[in-house]
Amino acid sequence: MGHGGGGQLSAELVQHLFLPSFGEAARTATPTDAHVLTLGNGVRLAFSTDTYVVRPLFFPGGNIGELAVYGTVNDLAMSGAQPLALSTGFVLEEGLEMDVLGRIAAAMGAAALKAGLQLVTGDTKVVEHGHGDGVYINTAGIGVLPAGADIRPDRARPGDVVIVSGEIGLHGIAVLSLREGLEFGTELRSDTAPLNHLVAAMLAACPDIHALRDPTRGGLAASLCEIAETAQVGIEFDERSLPVPEAVRAACGFLGLDPIHVANEGKLVAIVAPDHAEAVLAAMRATDVGGSAAIIGRVVEENGGVVVARTGLGSTRIVDRPLGEQLPRIC
Amino acid sequence: MGHGGGGQLSAELVQHLFLPSFGEAARTATPTDAHVLTLGNGVRLAFSTDTYVVRPLFFPGGNIGELAVYGTVNDLAMSGAQPLALSTGFVLEEGLEMDVLGRIAAAMGAAALKAGLQLVTGDTKVVEHGHGDGVYINTAGIGVLPAGADIRPDRARPGDVVIVSGEIGLHGIAVLSLREGLEFGTELRSDTAPLNHLVAAMLAACPDIHALRDPTRGGLAASLCEIAETAQVGIEFDERSLPVPEAVRAACGFLGLDPIHVANEGKLVAIVAPDHAEAVLAAMRATDVGGSAAIIGRVVEENGGVVVARTGLGSTRIVDRPLGEQLPRIC
Repeated sequence: MGHGGGGQLSAELVQHLFLPSFGEAARTATPTDAHVLTLGNGVRLAFSTDTYVVRPLFFPGGNIGELAVYGTVNDLAMSGAQPLALSTGFVLEEGLEMDVLGRIAAAMGAAALKAGLQLVTGDTKVVEHGHGDGVYINTAGIGVLPAGADIRPDRARPGDVVIVSGEIGLHGIAVLSLREGLEFGTELRSDTAPLNHLVAAMLAACPDIHALRDPTRGGLAASLCEIAETAQVGIEFDERSLPVPEAVRAACGFLGLDPIHVANEGKLVAIVAPDHAEAVLAAMRATDVGGSAAIIGRVVEENGGVVVARTGLGSTRIVDRPLGEQLPRIC
Repeated sequence: MGHGGGGQLSAELVQHLFLPSFGEAARTATPTDAHVLTLGNGVRLAFSTDTYVVRPLFFPGGNIGELAVYGTVNDLAMSGAQPLALSTGFVLEEGLEMDVLGRIAAAMGAAALKAGLQLVTGDTKVVEHGHGDGVYINTAGIGVLPAGADIRPDRARPGDVVIVSGEIGLHGIAVLSLREGLEFGTELRSDTAPLNHLVAAMLAACPDIHALRDPTRGGLAASLCEIAETAQVGIEFDERSLPVPEAVRAACGFLGLDPIHVANEGKLVAIVAPDHAEAVLAAMRATDVGGSAAIIGRVVEENGGVVVARTGLGSTRIVDRPLGEQLPRIC
């Protein structure tokens, strides 16, 4: 199960199995969420895919259909691209109720409209009862990159500022609470949302954003570790500056989880040159999904490849990418 | 199970569930294998997706990895496009042997090289043991359309010639024989192969090919019915002119199947104006996958939307699209 969790084992599966096996046909130089294709005439396309195996199919604040649309939209947006079209591939388990499938498809249609893209091509396969979990959904998306945008994890450089777009840990805890029948006083809702409009607002404020990641599986820790490793820089952040909702903090305390390892959906982490940080932050806060955006840390020269958290007690600790997965089947 | 078989029930699921539920976000006017996106500067992209749930994972002549690459390459090729890049989305069942996954990935890499494209972006999810069948693979592909190509099922017009690129029924019977432990004297091998080079050769001979389909799930019958219905024309063909290998004919007789309903992989059916038929046929026969190409029938004005077969006895019969699926989990 760990190999699907988005952590260290997932990265190893890609590095040690898929890339060598694909051989010369593989083109996955840096661990970006979307691949950029440059066409003959200079048009740059972003291309990305994700498969969604979340359980349960419906959860507070969202469902698998919304996740499947926003997840791929957000992967495209992390390269700066605005989404153009999405493909949808369904694996249905025999016996799935048509009504359930209809509600999921309707959520996908509404999500696509909200993100401003079209669902253009699809495929449906059915597997025998017991060989699936109701429905698995793959989406692949094409987006167009604005001229000038060059957003890659390896562009993080010492002095850059680290910004998080809002409260962390909501999606993971919302799904987990429902699945395990836990209650934490307030009802936690997933933060699933499209990020492409937020990214457009950020690029309007500063066309030279260095890096963007959406901290889904593996949480904020995985995103920061990936940026630090890829760019071979250190990243320092202050735990007290992290926007962690009280209910997430309580749930994590109860479950023995660290909020920075918990999956998010409609959130991003941005690496921005210090001169542009305030303008980008202001642009983010003016959007509906970026209202709680905050500067949480900065990129440093020391400790290349390592993420260091400053704790509430003034000490520091090294932040690891989770090995496997804290919460399976979260997206 | 029938809703995933590529027949009438699959078409109804799209028409009556997905399209109404997706609402305004859906763009699926005609049942093409690939959707064509026109970018601002006139570049035309083809975009297509397919999910592969075939059992068993390895079969005579191929495996799920090759199918997953060639299947989407061929869907792109049916719009005339040459493939540029493919995404890969894996759903792995917990406990799948790494060696098996490595062999599948290696087959995908080799297949991508053969088709001349790159595997550029991917995703892996793992589901609990018992919740999958080893591996499900989704691929989505982007291709570039040559200038002038306008290949759509609704362009079939009375007088056009119907060409099949080679022997039919091989993939379906090869998979079924292995799955059911049947033997038919000679070993039948799947015909899985990329069709993009064949299509390039056909377009070089005649840039104005009217329609192309690859008769996979639902077989040749489903492809011809779809063209006839979409273009509202009749299609007539002669059963005796169908290139059906003797072993397929024997197996179909034994199993009570009609070869025109059996799935193919590396085959296409082309609708071409009569003036261009001989040139296209010659170009097809000069390729390694089109050596047995044959003219099997023509498009007629009568019986709009209906496919009619002329039998060996001189009588005629109406060819139906299969309702559900003859052979489940065939691709």
